[in-house]
Amino acid sequence: MSSDLNYLKEVELKNPIAVAGLPGIALVGKLSIDYLIEELDAEKFGELESDKFPGWAIRENGLVRDLKIYFYHAKIKGFDRDIVLLTGDAQASSSQGQYELSYEILEALSGEGVETLITMAAFLESDGKESSVVGAATDLETAEKIKENDVGLLNSGRIVGMNGLLVSLGVENDMNGFCLLGTTESKDTDPEAAKNVLSRFSEIYDLSLDLSNFDEKAPDLPKFKPPEIKMPSVSGGEKDISYIR
Amino acid sequence: MSSDLNYLKEVELKNPIAVAGLPGIALVGKLSIDYLIEELDAEKFGELESDKFPGWAIRENGLVRDLKIYFYHAKIKGFDRDIVLLTGDAQASSSQGQYELSYEILEALSGEGVETLITMAAFLESDGKESSVVGAATDLETAEKIKENDVGLLNSGRIVGMNGLLVSLGVENDMNGFCLLGTTESKDTDPEAAKNVLSRFSEIYDLSLDLSNFDEKAPDLPKFKPPEIKMPSVSGGEKDISYIR
Amino acid sequence: MSSDLNYLKEVELKNPIAVAGLPGIALVGKLSIDYLIEELDAEKFGELESDKFPGWAIRENGLVRDLKIYFYHAKIKGFDRDIVLLTGDAQASSSQGQYELSYEILEALSGEGVETLITMAAFLESDGKESSVVGAATDLETAEKIKENDVGLLNSGRIVGMNGLLVSLGVENDMNGFCLLGTTESKDTDPEAAKNVLSRFSEIYDLSLDLSNFDEKAPDLPKFKPPEIKMPSVSGGEKDISYIR
Amino acid sequence: MSSDLNYLKEVELKNPIAVAGLPGIALVGKLSIDYLIEELDAEKFGELESDKFPGWAIRENGLVRDLKIYFYHAKIKGFDRDIVLLTGDAQASSSQGQYELSYEILEALSGEGVETLITMAAFLESDGKESSVVGAATDLETAEKIKENDVGLLNSGRIVGMNGLLVSLGVENDMNGFCLLGTTESKDTDPEAAKNVLSRFSEIYDLSLDLSNFDEKAPDLPKFKPPEIKMPSVSGGEKDISYIR
Repeated sequence: MSSDLNYLKEVELKNPIAVAGLPGIALVGKLSIDYLIEELDAEKFGELESDKFPGWAIRENGLVRDLKIYFYHAKIKGFDRDIVLLTGDAQASSSQGQYELSYEILEALSGEGVETLITMAAFLESDGKESSVVGAATDLETAEKIKENDVGLLNSGRIVGMNGLLVSLGVENDMNGFCLLGTTESKDTDPEAAKNVLSRFSEIYDLSLDLSNFDEKAPDLPKFKPPEIKMPSVSGGEKDISYIR
Repeated sequence: MSSDLNYLKEVELKNPIAVAGLPGIALVGKLSIDYLIEELDAEKFGELESDKFPGWAIRENGLVRDLKIYFYHAKIKGFDRDIVLLTGDAQASSSQGQYELSYEILEALSGEGVETLITMAAFLESDGKESSVVGAATDLETAEKIKENDVGLLNSGRIVGMNGLLVSLGVENDMNGFCLLGTTESKDTDPEAAKNVLSRFSEIYDLSLDLSNFDEKAPDLPKFKPPEIKMPSVSGGEKDISYIR
Repeated sequence: MSSDLNYLKEVELKNPIAVAGLPGIALVGKLSIDYLIEELDAEKFGELESDKFPGWAIRENGLVRDLKIYFYHAKIKGFDRDIVLLTGDAQASSSQGQYELSYEILEALSGEGVETLITMAAFLESDGKESSVVGAATDLETAEKIKENDVGLLNSGRIVGMNGLLVSLGVENDMNGFCLLGTTESKDTDPEAAKNVLSRFSEIYDLSLDLSNFDEKAPDLPKFKPPEIKMPSVSGGEKDISYIR
Repeated sequence: MSSDLNYLKEVELKNPIAVAGLPGIALVGKLSIDYLIEELDAEKFGELESDKFPGWAIRENGLVRDLKIYFYHAKIKGFDRDIVLLTGDAQASSSQGQYELSYEILEALSGEGVETLITMAAFLESDGKESSVVGAATDLETAEKIKENDVGLLNSGRIVGMNGLLVSLGVENDMNGFCLLGTTESKDTDPEAAKNVLSRFSEIYDLSLDLSNFDEKAPDLPKFKPPEIKMPSVSGGEKDISYIR
């Protein structure tokens, strides 16, 4: 087995956009997607297993299970496109694995008719932030659109990991899209940065997402207390104290 | 060659459960299985070679040999299921290798009719321990069963390495099971933690394992003085002083 | 997909030589090629995508895009051979990836009729430099030729990464060639070292390259302010502060 | 291409033994084989290229070339078996690559009729050494034989890298053999340890190797001043100052 996409149910999606956030810095992307799943009462329709993940098992409420990428289906009132929400337990453990897992995800999304892909992640900034949310897009038109909605455009540098790869490689699958990156000073969980990202996402698509619940819901969401999953690094260097081998 | 399972003899197993412990923190898993092999007079029936192992050869009593996974067959008086004991010289050297080697082991176990898989390993805890043995299971019923036998259920976090992967990936092979993790403060050999794990294992299955021999036998078992095998890390960073290249 | 070479247009090349410089120490190779592309008004005719690259996306003027190797076509007045200029966003992320990507590049160059391959890179020297440009060639005749043009021949050591591999592996594709290495004390961008390399290249082939523009053009070239791309290391250890995941 | 064995000439070998020493700690193995090649006027008959090597090119007297494994043919007066001498520019860069390259070498040796394989390497020891040469063998009979010749048998631990793998994996190709390890306190070149290893090798096979030339020849051999090749580590962490990318 390399990777294995398991459909839990059939979905028929209308002109869907996909919104993805995998675990990364400050868990901004994962928190954002977890909130959307909860708030929009999204329905899980697919799970992707892979040997590209780090060699971990997840402990969750006394159960042990393998790492997965999750595909959810959601609708937003007043928004005429279906939404695929995508998150997971970890990113792939090597550079090449990140490419391979990204291609598999993109193929699955493409098969569902997705032509627009947004990723949510963090932008680590030690000094004062100019913009609470920054980003970059696959094309000038989309870049202009997010800029109009107060997203600071990034002019240089790189986006490390699958939250960048998914958007950049999506172009090969005829997808356009953009990365929304919440600036954060912290490497730990940063719900505020996630909220900023969600707020900007809502404005860009005129979604009127009600984020008044966010602060209240955040600490109660089980997934907001993630099982100490840290961004896998190529060198596997992690500083987790309570671990098991 | 990728991996190569060599059957030393044919076995016919009655409703077997598998108990595995690969080298890891404090060697808890390996010590536990080595003791069971000795105490139950288990018979080796299979060896698995693999290029997924770290690039080492083992020195043992003047001999040099390659790394292997070992399959043993054992019976326990009064227990009506056959037991497969599984241990090895090392875990795979990369994340992807750990997945691949785990799949190969699971396929072999599945071929022997194994539907229940238990792994033994360590839980590293710097502060005082609440429970001497903690764990997690593949399903609620099994989790309940181990909890009733004084195993502290783990609610979050991850199990790193193949002792976690084997159980979590076993689900795909229709196996249920659980991880028994002996809490330890040390990264060196911890026979006490292994004894705790074995004791809990005995209680869960009503095996009346006689562990009175444990303290006595432990220092004499050749395998209890392991050849400084440390858990391979993805980055290969090891601090072994007396090594050879 | 492993790698994918996309031809943007057909080119017909006359007895071509290839000059390559991928990102590395002090960006000497990349700066040299970027300058030649600009100065010679070179035309891009091919792009190579690959899953051997590090798991990054590039941010550039508000856009996000994947990493690529670029093939350009140039002519120099008075020089009767066509020139293929080759650069890229990064080197491959692992040793094996560097071999594989090098083979793919060499196959493409070979398909264009290239029989001579020059790479430009840096030579890190902490103490005073004997020679501002050092190098090594695939054969004695070529070594003699670069030595006559004030290139200090390297007698031992190794050239790490694809700027060395391309030349050494090119021999298998019946290419001869050499590495021109600008000595530098710095690990950051070193335009002066790039200028030295270009100057020696010009002398070797009697090209009369006008480098009087170099100092002036360097700071204005967008590619001279590279997006903090650092040489990927096998262990992935990078100390980049403003990054995103 | 994965690996590619190129025969430079046909050889017909009589009951051959192979003696291998790849670059490793203190270069003991490589020095030993380089000396034998020189002293026995051995003839190179094969070269193995591989993408499993680290991503380097070798600089040698103004030339650049790729990394290789070298097969030489030698005879020793009074010894009725032909000798294959094997060395190379580096070991493979990853654990899995070390297995794969070892298998390829073993297949080639097996094809030449080799049934006995000796590797020479270093044993790093910080405290006083009990034995100047230690070792381990594939079988009890061979272990006894080297022990009788003053080789201290190693009872536990591991041999890291291909100098161990070649012997341990050779068993699958029906080869017996042993590792001869010269104890060294240093990680740099240790000709004295190499001389000890050669001396013991000579005694084991009653070869009457004349090592009186060793001290004299060692500093003059070009290969005794190796191009700063260090043992590749999985993490790629090297501390080489004068390198090039």
